[in-house]
Amino acid sequence: MTRIPLAQYLFKRLRSQGVHAIHGVPGDFTLKALDHLPPSGVKWIGNCNELNAGYAADGYARVRGLGALFTTYGVGELSAINAVAGSFSESVPVVHIVGTPQRRLQDARANVHHTLGDGRPRVFAQMHRPVTVAQTDLRDETTAPEDIDRTVAAALEHSRPVYIELPCDMVSKEVDAAGLEVPLVDRFTTTEEFKARDEDALVADIVRRLYGSKRPLVLVDSGDGLRSPSLRREVNEFVKRSGLPTLCMPSGSGMVDHALGNYYGVHSGPVGQIDTMPYVNGADLVLAFGPMFSDTQTLGWKVVPEPEKTITMGKNHLSLPTRTSTTLSRINLHSLLPRLTKLLDKTLLSKPDVSTLGDFRTVVPRPRPTSASTSTANEDGQSDDDPIDQTNFYLRLNPYLRPDDVVLLGNATPILGGRDLVLPTGSQVIASGQWFSIGHMLPAALGASLARQQTVRNGGRTILLDGDGSFQVTAQELSTVIRYRVDLTIFLINNSGYAYERQIHGMNEDYNDLSCWNYMELPFVFSNKPHRNDDGTTTTTTTNDNRNHDEDDEYPIKSYVIRTWREMDTLLASEEFCTGKGLRFVDVRMDKFDVPEKFRVVFKRAGEQLG
Amino acid sequence: MTRIPLAQYLFKRLRSQGVHAIHGVPGDFTLKALDHLPPSGVKWIGNCNELNAGYAADGYARVRGLGALFTTYGVGELSAINAVAGSFSESVPVVHIVGTPQRRLQDARANVHHTLGDGRPRVFAQMHRPVTVAQTDLRDETTAPEDIDRTVAAALEHSRPVYIELPCDMVSKEVDAAGLEVPLVDRFTTTEEFKARDEDALVADIVRRLYGSKRPLVLVDSGDGLRSPSLRREVNEFVKRSGLPTLCMPSGSGMVDHALGNYYGVHSGPVGQIDTMPYVNGADLVLAFGPMFSDTQTLGWKVVPEPEKTITMGKNHLSLPTRTSTTLSRINLHSLLPRLTKLLDKTLLSKPDVSTLGDFRTVVPRPRPTSASTSTANEDGQSDDDPIDQTNFYLRLNPYLRPDDVVLLGNATPILGGRDLVLPTGSQVIASGQWFSIGHMLPAALGASLARQQTVRNGGRTILLDGDGSFQVTAQELSTVIRYRVDLTIFLINNSGYAYERQIHGMNEDYNDLSCWNYMELPFVFSNKPHRNDDGTTTTTTTNDNRNHDEDDEYPIKSYVIRTWREMDTLLASEEFCTGKGLRFVDVRMDKFDVPEKFRVVFKRAGEQLG
Repeated sequence: MTRIPLAQYLFKRLRSQGVHAIHGVPGDFTLKALDHLPPSGVKWIGNCNELNAGYAADGYARVRGLGALFTTYGVGELSAINAVAGSFSESVPVVHIVGTPQRRLQDARANVHHTLGDGRPRVFAQMHRPVTVAQTDLRDETTAPEDIDRTVAAALEHSRPVYIELPCDMVSKEVDAAGLEVPLVDRFTTTEEFKARDEDALVADIVRRLYGSKRPLVLVDSGDGLRSPSLRREVNEFVKRSGLPTLCMPSGSGMVDHALGNYYGVHSGPVGQIDTMPYVNGADLVLAFGPMFSDTQTLGWKVVPEPEKTITMGKNHLSLPTRTSTTLSRINLHSLLPRLTKLLDKTLLSKPDVSTLGDFRTVVPRPRPTSASTSTANEDGQSDDDPIDQTNFYLRLNPYLRPDDVVLLGNATPILGGRDLVLPTGSQVIASGQWFSIGHMLPAALGASLARQQTVRNGGRTILLDGDGSFQVTAQELSTVIRYRVDLTIFLINNSGYAYERQIHGMNEDYNDLSCWNYMELPFVFSNKPHRNDDGTTTTTTTNDNRNHDEDDEYPIKSYVIRTWREMDTLLASEEFCTGKGLRFVDVRMDKFDVPEKFRVVFKRAGEQLG
Repeated sequence: MTRIPLAQYLFKRLRSQGVHAIHGVPGDFTLKALDHLPPSGVKWIGNCNELNAGYAADGYARVRGLGALFTTYGVGELSAINAVAGSFSESVPVVHIVGTPQRRLQDARANVHHTLGDGRPRVFAQMHRPVTVAQTDLRDETTAPEDIDRTVAAALEHSRPVYIELPCDMVSKEVDAAGLEVPLVDRFTTTEEFKARDEDALVADIVRRLYGSKRPLVLVDSGDGLRSPSLRREVNEFVKRSGLPTLCMPSGSGMVDHALGNYYGVHSGPVGQIDTMPYVNGADLVLAFGPMFSDTQTLGWKVVPEPEKTITMGKNHLSLPTRTSTTLSRINLHSLLPRLTKLLDKTLLSKPDVSTLGDFRTVVPRPRPTSASTSTANEDGQSDDDPIDQTNFYLRLNPYLRPDDVVLLGNATPILGGRDLVLPTGSQVIASGQWFSIGHMLPAALGASLARQQTVRNGGRTILLDGDGSFQVTAQELSTVIRYRVDLTIFLINNSGYAYERQIHGMNEDYNDLSCWNYMELPFVFSNKPHRNDDGTTTTTTTNDNRNHDEDDEYPIKSYVIRTWREMDTLLASEEFCTGKGLRFVDVRMDKFDVPEKFRVVFKRAGEQLG
């Protein structure tokens, strides 16, 4: 019987599930465990703080299907809990490991630092319970391997965070390594059981309803475990083989290959580039995969399809509408969906009129009403020297996108404008649909880019579109991006405030203003290398302001300011920029009151609804 | 009957208790309430993120006796919860107000953004319960004023955080303002009751024990509500009038006026500049005020006085040792302590031999063993060109301190070295004794400095001593300091890593390293003003490197790098620097492995104890 240190069992188990990097901040109760990472083949990513580490683990998990976070007792774990709650909310499997004090001190209710000082040693575990689906305290080396496996398996099964306490005196205890020989999936999956009991009937029922539908619709989102790489493949296979008209929710954009002929873009209803409501309102059957029907991405539930016509599928559950209510069944979508795809005879499905859905791929930036007649106006009616605005920015970014890019949309105006992106094959979007925590996406981009370092397909870039207010929340993580030489391109929508909030309420109130930063210098402060000024240029010239530090050819750091379409075109025409190698930071200056035009009415309504 | 909007009742109640500034980050569920701040006479301080806002509110409360934090539902409040837990842990009264969704949406369990998406609307209130002493949900305008008053009073009574939910549709509901006419203290204090029942007997018992003691000791800390400005005054009065030998715990340094002849400095046991153990071990009676006897500040409980000889007093409780156990009584220290002070006849107290306690005010920096013989060596044996080290740094800082300074010690090596500070009258230290969350003290310094803007005595400066690892956790709050033109002087102990952790375990491990920042430039990135380089100097010269931006005479921003004693002396000799006006940022470069020498053995032992 091979025996290994407990910490190595834990890390090797994570490694076996594809986790090659763990995020966190060191603390005394975690230090000794960190020594066991290298022998387990797992890389330590030291973040600047634990909330950022939690967001990074979330981003990592969204790409690889599982992520891990390692914090210290009390102060560390509570700093990260908002990220863990976000992973719970949006169905992202993250293992939160917490280094806890020696068991003897916990048992004695000793006044250990990082406690509340009142002898409640496991109060933090209690606080994690509402936002994790399984918890374990590794106090016993005889059961620890099984406890670890069961807990990690729960994260995968439910696609939600789990919580593991690792007392610091347990780190080096020798445990039986035999469990590692058996893949988790063989020990914990319950596929067979579901298959036998319900699956045949459920698949047959769905097929029957689809054959009977005159205007079916597939609506794809990234909630309820759907983001797992394998389910994403299966959903695409279903969409492709069935040929059914398909839309994505904003947070599901990129879940479906944009090149598929029967994919019609993001369902934004009347505020989308193409109004999807005429088709959705007329649909008599909707197959919704992992929907996150929060008010924010449904215009206050106005674009949610009628529940009585909607079959909803998550990773582990299916809800079927009946005449009077809905039936909820526990399923395994990994098993059910391929069978559905296979069973469906495309020729028996109706061919609805999809003309109102148009072709989102051909939407071009719209002319601005005021400058269409100037002599330098280009084909879409905007002058090259006009300031960049959000109504057109995202459409203008489309030619820049490449296959296998991962685009993260910050919880700011990019979650609106990002709906206009047309993604090349293999590209995906990472966007919130439920939690919408500002600051989430910069660390998530770090995690996502790291996650892709281990994948075979390395062509694509990691691109973050973020707002300035959101960026400031977690800004120091830019230094972690640089420290670990993670490739990342950032477009900062810099409009001097919380634009999203400003439009909802308090248009001119200073509580919606921000501290102004000189963003372009930030990468150089964090890289701690001597500055080099461009010859003769200053930050106030009107052409591209570039700051670069390419002494390090392997990891170039460059920052740019763009204000006009001309500056944007010049930047995007540079192949050197477009490689996405190193850190590219683009400060995109926009007007303080600029937002995607069509959304003004949405903000206004949201403000009125506040009571 | 005067009626005012509910939000104004809340803010005016806080204002009446001395809260002139509320920290937070705007969110849709808080926006409308923010409009009611100006008419209530309360200033909004928009932080970069909610954890930082929570730390700032904590720092504000440590100075003023009450602080407030305003966050949005879910994402905001959970981001701040670690700061709230810290305030709970260290007995700091902070009112955490959370803007929640419209009641109708909560009642319908609607899928509102910032929720977990599963219809558990008040799960976040549940998560706050273990770290707050009172909670209220302002759903009913008829009871809301009373609910607010009761909750705020609980924060003051228990000196701990409380939690208030403010649904966004309740903000403007008109409520009866009559309650505001009555001071909280008159409605909720229970002083009289305690007095009548127990106080006479308890005071008499303590006096009797003091008269019987041959070697009494007073030990003062800042836990259990002792930090409240009024209790701090009463403790000082007791120490002064009784003449009893007095020490402070490290987190209580500055609770007692350092000029009092019977005050003997910080109780650090054998690792202090003067070993306090001979006296403490021989003490036959210890009066401990608000002690936080966590392992971190007691050398693993080695310097904790014997419990059977210790009378412990908090704001609301007193524990008296008996022959076989201890008796816990509920008290009101505001009432009990002045009576004790008054009753005590100094002439009946013994005059113990305090010679071993020496005089901490006369401790001077020690010679470094290696450089004592060089020709430029100064009186303490160190050469002016020797690198700054932590063994001597804090002692060398003493002449710089002035009356009414507030010195914050970051949760890094400054909590060790800060024990050497000799504080002029009116000065105080803010330091953790229990929670020790890294990153806490930069935002807390913002809050503390703001809190002092409203006080009459404005001579003193706000000074932060922080470590680089700690600083990076919450670094963006430096921009908030600048945005609101808050006076602050920062000494950054820059030793390229988590020095505290490094010494405990993993001396050469890269998990204890940090991303290197060019700290000196950071204030200028955050001030968003054009850079001005010093003529001919670069960051690598050996004399002071100064970066300044004094175009703004009212709020000068200056940064400095110092590496040697000479550079430090030059800086501290500059009256212009010493005013503390504007932002002064000093990057103090130290060796990666440097720590206060006496503590090496403490770190080593802590590492060995990890199991």
